[in-house]
Amino acid sequence: MTVTFPKGFRSAGIAVGLKSTGKPDLALVVNDGPARAAAVVFTSNRAQANPILWSRKVAQNGPARAVVLNSGGANCFTGDFGYETTRLTAEAVATALGSDPNGDASDSAADDILVCSTGLIGTGDQSFRDKIVGNIPQLVQALAADDTTAPAAILTTDSVEKTASHEGDGWRIGAMAKGAGMLAPGLATMLVVITTDAHIDNEVADRALRGATGGSFDRLDSDGCMSTNDQVTLLASGASGVTPDEEEFAAALAAVCDSLAAQLQADAEGASHDIDIEVMGAASVADAVEVGRSVARNNLFKAAIFGNDPNWGRVLAAIGTTEAAFDPYQVDVSFNGVRLCHAGGPDRPVDECDLTPRKTHVLIELYAGEHTATVRTNDLTHDYVHENSAYSS
Amino acid sequence: MTVTFPKGFRSAGIAVGLKSTGKPDLALVVNDGPARAAAVVFTSNRAQANPILWSRKVAQNGPARAVVLNSGGANCFTGDFGYETTRLTAEAVATALGSDPNGDASDSAADDILVCSTGLIGTGDQSFRDKIVGNIPQLVQALAADDTTAPAAILTTDSVEKTASHEGDGWRIGAMAKGAGMLAPGLATMLVVITTDAHIDNEVADRALRGATGGSFDRLDSDGCMSTNDQVTLLASGASGVTPDEEEFAAALAAVCDSLAAQLQADAEGASHDIDIEVMGAASVADAVEVGRSVARNNLFKAAIFGNDPNWGRVLAAIGTTEAAFDPYQVDVSFNGVRLCHAGGPDRPVDECDLTPRKTHVLIELYAGEHTATVRTNDLTHDYVHENSAYSS
Repeated sequence: MTVTFPKGFRSAGIAVGLKSTGKPDLALVVNDGPARAAAVVFTSNRAQANPILWSRKVAQNGPARAVVLNSGGANCFTGDFGYETTRLTAEAVATALGSDPNGDASDSAADDILVCSTGLIGTGDQSFRDKIVGNIPQLVQALAADDTTAPAAILTTDSVEKTASHEGDGWRIGAMAKGAGMLAPGLATMLVVITTDAHIDNEVADRALRGATGGSFDRLDSDGCMSTNDQVTLLASGASGVTPDEEEFAAALAAVCDSLAAQLQADAEGASHDIDIEVMGAASVADAVEVGRSVARNNLFKAAIFGNDPNWGRVLAAIGTTEAAFDPYQVDVSFNGVRLCHAGGPDRPVDECDLTPRKTHVLIELYAGEHTATVRTNDLTHDYVHENSAYSS
Repeated sequence: MTVTFPKGFRSAGIAVGLKSTGKPDLALVVNDGPARAAAVVFTSNRAQANPILWSRKVAQNGPARAVVLNSGGANCFTGDFGYETTRLTAEAVATALGSDPNGDASDSAADDILVCSTGLIGTGDQSFRDKIVGNIPQLVQALAADDTTAPAAILTTDSVEKTASHEGDGWRIGAMAKGAGMLAPGLATMLVVITTDAHIDNEVADRALRGATGGSFDRLDSDGCMSTNDQVTLLASGASGVTPDEEEFAAALAAVCDSLAAQLQADAEGASHDIDIEVMGAASVADAVEVGRSVARNNLFKAAIFGNDPNWGRVLAAIGTTEAAFDPYQVDVSFNGVRLCHAGGPDRPVDECDLTPRKTHVLIELYAGEHTATVRTNDLTHDYVHENSAYSS
């Protein structure tokens, strides 16, 4: 179930030669209405790709009619030529879609078209413009209300397509995502398009999306590296005619984002363990997230997990670098259900703990309050080093 | 030239069975005076090992007579037993050294003895107490004014001994260091003992040491991981009878620390490149350090260097995560003298840049001010992952 699961949406994915493999690399998701509510969360990286610079303006304008996404090139640090390519892409989509039966005259303008790009950043190759802009008419022609080809066209080093859906009482949510590295917090950390036929306004969409990303993608920290390009978009067509309770909608959206975040974690580049770091007893949620993140970003901890070594000392050393409220001599640390550290000292023997399963659970009990958070990460492996040293070659 | 290069010092290094290899693992450096000035910089990790907790008290008391250091066990998160072991170690050293001809009666007390430990943290094995405390008399007996055995006894995964020295006008500095991983900033990040026979007081020693570590060890960020145990100690015997100009002494101490920092970088676990990230044109030194550090900690950048890939896009993406003053579309980035990125866009072709030499220079020009700083780091390699996944097994 992808972005065409809710009513009022068409999508398409085609190959235009951006990927040297010849795989699909250009996708389009169109909201046919009748409503056009939208919310977008952008990377918080201050070095931002051209599609981000463009889409920020579109998002400020209010309603969005479509999202066009390419893989095989991030269009980042590509200068004026790159920005102009983004603008021309949006224009070509607006032109090819033609005037909008559901909108006013201005609805066919380029400034209703969000653009996303992913792939290598900083290339000097300018051939991508013609490949994208020249193939927009073909892409629009491929649009279908039962399309399943879009999710594959946004993948880069991903090994699998990522989609999620929710069926409400007369309304639906559909979603697709890409991301297999550079998954870091404090931002939207990948390309995600979420569609719904619920009848909601921009404010509800924005509140629900910020809440859902804050509890899911923002707590996924695969390798501590923040992308220049990533964007999470929610489009609401209102085609179901149903306005769900806001809390119910927010919870459903959060569940969809949580599912996608878990899929992104499971497909992280080169990883051999999916590690959920659960922090309990924190003085605040912010403390819990900071502690979880400090462990998630610790290369020594991540390498130990790769070696199936439940090295709880590295967990405490990482916690010690935070500003969170805690006393090192009160902390408990468990790996996969075995408490190895009690009150800052050794507890059960480490050989009681089995780290061979891919799913890994690290429980940190701070005894400093009542708050909790889980940060998802991956281990640091030979394959991670290999994939990321060979990425651009 | 090690810690016995200046007058007034004796040292020793012996094997007591802490290392399973049988290599030397217990060292002692004694200041025979006549003066006893000292300055110490400790890890800023809030999770601190027992020797750090102990040595902080010693440093607060003022003069220090000796530093006893063990490798083969960090004595961190070892509970009350561990702290008591540290205290007993200091007591045994004070007793074995006997009363001090240069000090008052209290100078033979344990609270003049600094203790340092390094190795695996969080072990439940308690046999280390007898190995250390029981062998202190033998260690004291081995003390010699021309000793060269101490530097080897503090090594862990280091592949080479690290020493440095400076010859002033009638006074000297000698130093030894260990460290091959967990080299991160904001603290003293390894074990370092520096001796001098210059006649300086505690205040001059402290100012000079903080200045020297701030510009050297604090800008070394091998893997972003901060240790629980690390300590830089400066002992001044006054045995030369010469009081150097404070600026001259500070500059000499800074040069010694800089040499040690470069040696630590060159011996970082599993590294195949020593990367100097030079940031120019920053609005402040703090901005320059923050920018350098953000690149030094970026796993994607580090993996790219391992693959000899001058991936300047990852440099800009890392800079974008900082709070530093800069405009991404003004930044220049050069690798080994070849400017690959100009004004946030592609400049020279990447194949003009040769990253095969171990020494790697990345120059970032921010065009936001007049300040500069260099952060030292290493690449992320298969060997790093291997060494740190197998460390405790």
